[in-house]
Amino acid sequence: MTLGKVIGTVWSTRKDESLVGAKFLIVQELDLEYNPKKSTVIAVDSVGAGVGEVVLVAQGSSARQTTLTKNKPVDAVIMAIVDKLDISHKENT
Amino acid sequence: MTLGKVIGTVWSTRKDESLVGAKFLIVQELDLEYNPKKSTVIAVDSVGAGVGEVVLVAQGSSARQTTLTKNKPVDAVIMAIVDKLDISHKENT
Amino acid sequence: MTLGKVIGTVWSTRKDESLVGAKFLIVQELDLEYNPKKSTVIAVDSVGAGVGEVVLVAQGSSARQTTLTKNKPVDAVIMAIVDKLDISHKENT
Amino acid sequence: MTLGKVIGTVWSTRKDESLVGAKFLIVQELDLEYNPKKSTVIAVDSVGAGVGEVVLVAQGSSARQTTLTKNKPVDAVIMAIVDKLDISHKENT
Amino acid sequence: MTLGKVIGTVWSTRKDESLVGAKFLIVQELDLEYNPKKSTVIAVDSVGAGVGEVVLVAQGSSARQTTLTKNKPVDAVIMAIVDKLDISHKENT
Repeated sequence: MTLGKVIGTVWSTRKDESLVGAKFLIVQELDLEYNPKKSTVIAVDSVGAGVGEVVLVAQGSSARQTTLTKNKPVDAVIMAIVDKLDISHKENT
Repeated sequence: MTLGKVIGTVWSTRKDESLVGAKFLIVQELDLEYNPKKSTVIAVDSVGAGVGEVVLVAQGSSARQTTLTKNKPVDAVIMAIVDKLDISHKENT
Repeated sequence: MTLGKVIGTVWSTRKDESLVGAKFLIVQELDLEYNPKKSTVIAVDSVGAGVGEVVLVAQGSSARQTTLTKNKPVDAVIMAIVDKLDISHKENT
Repeated sequence: MTLGKVIGTVWSTRKDESLVGAKFLIVQELDLEYNPKKSTVIAVDSVGAGVGEVVLVAQGSSARQTTLTKNKPVDAVIMAIVDKLDISHKENT
Repeated sequence: MTLGKVIGTVWSTRKDESLVGAKFLIVQELDLEYNPKKSTVIAVDSVGAGVGEVVLVAQGSSARQTTLTKNKPVDAVIMAIVDKLDISHKENT
């Protein structure tokens, strides 16, 4: 899974009909110190995440393993909201 | 999903027979300010997207979860046309 | 899908038995002006592509959605031969 | 599979209900000399891995092929704890 | 598929129980001139590959399409041993 922060929403009227009602959130990837990384991903929300929250995103076919996304053409889902990271062994690269 | 803009079409006569009639569009990836990125992807259109439109692309097995692409050898599908992005928390990287 | 040009063949005698008879082609990725990129991918041919031809490659599980590759351990397939690209809106990056 | 070292834990209360009880570990990727690389991945633990241990991570749909992760929205799983690497032919790049 | 050379073995006692007996090989990626690239992948061997041999690796769900890897949490498999490459049209990048 990828760590990220919800920074916005994508509005779309014309989309695959299975996606009516789906909420597309823009997630900016974070490093382990919560610093923003360059990459962003657009993910369907399955846990009621709001803008500003730190989340986990699952990608690929795994993104379709929630009740909300099953059999739908989506390749990224927010499946957890992060309370905190507990890092014990970080070494410098 | 990935944000992109439709910039062209791929013409192909000889292709897997399941793909007869499929429309292959060239999508240039965009950043959140709609600036073009270097990468492009060729995706099947499932929502009637036209050249110049901003779209979302789903990749991998998720690209086969539309009526048009089911069980076909395609790894990218346009599954939504973007009306607008609503960005609240963008931080500089 | 990825745009590429067939530049060669991989010869392999010892391989998974489901792959006997499969033709492994070396595909060099191309940009939209048909300039070669650094990356190459080895793909099974499902459309009778020959060396020098410009093709589309589908990757991941989608590579197994042709009659020839069904249920086989291959992660890239040539599923179309490109006649031409029609590019209308290319912007500089 | 990817080689990595477990360096911490992600705490999450609100998550997909199928994930209650799942343990999310932070894995820092390692090179073959066990030097840390920049990239990290968050993976579900299926083998009782602890912080500081060197592990293998399987990603994508393969991450759902353990008893613990079956049909769940997770895209990375720790499926082995590494005893040692045995490298015979490393060439300089 | 990816071209690589087997350069070693991973030893693991504690692993997902479906993986008992599986042989994890370390594969260094090669370019088309057989020069080593930076990236390595750890793959299950399904064709009796030995250290020093040049092989093809299939990744993602396709890695589970051999008798040995079916339904197992592995995301890379060696599915062919390469005899030789036959390159006709290589252009400089």
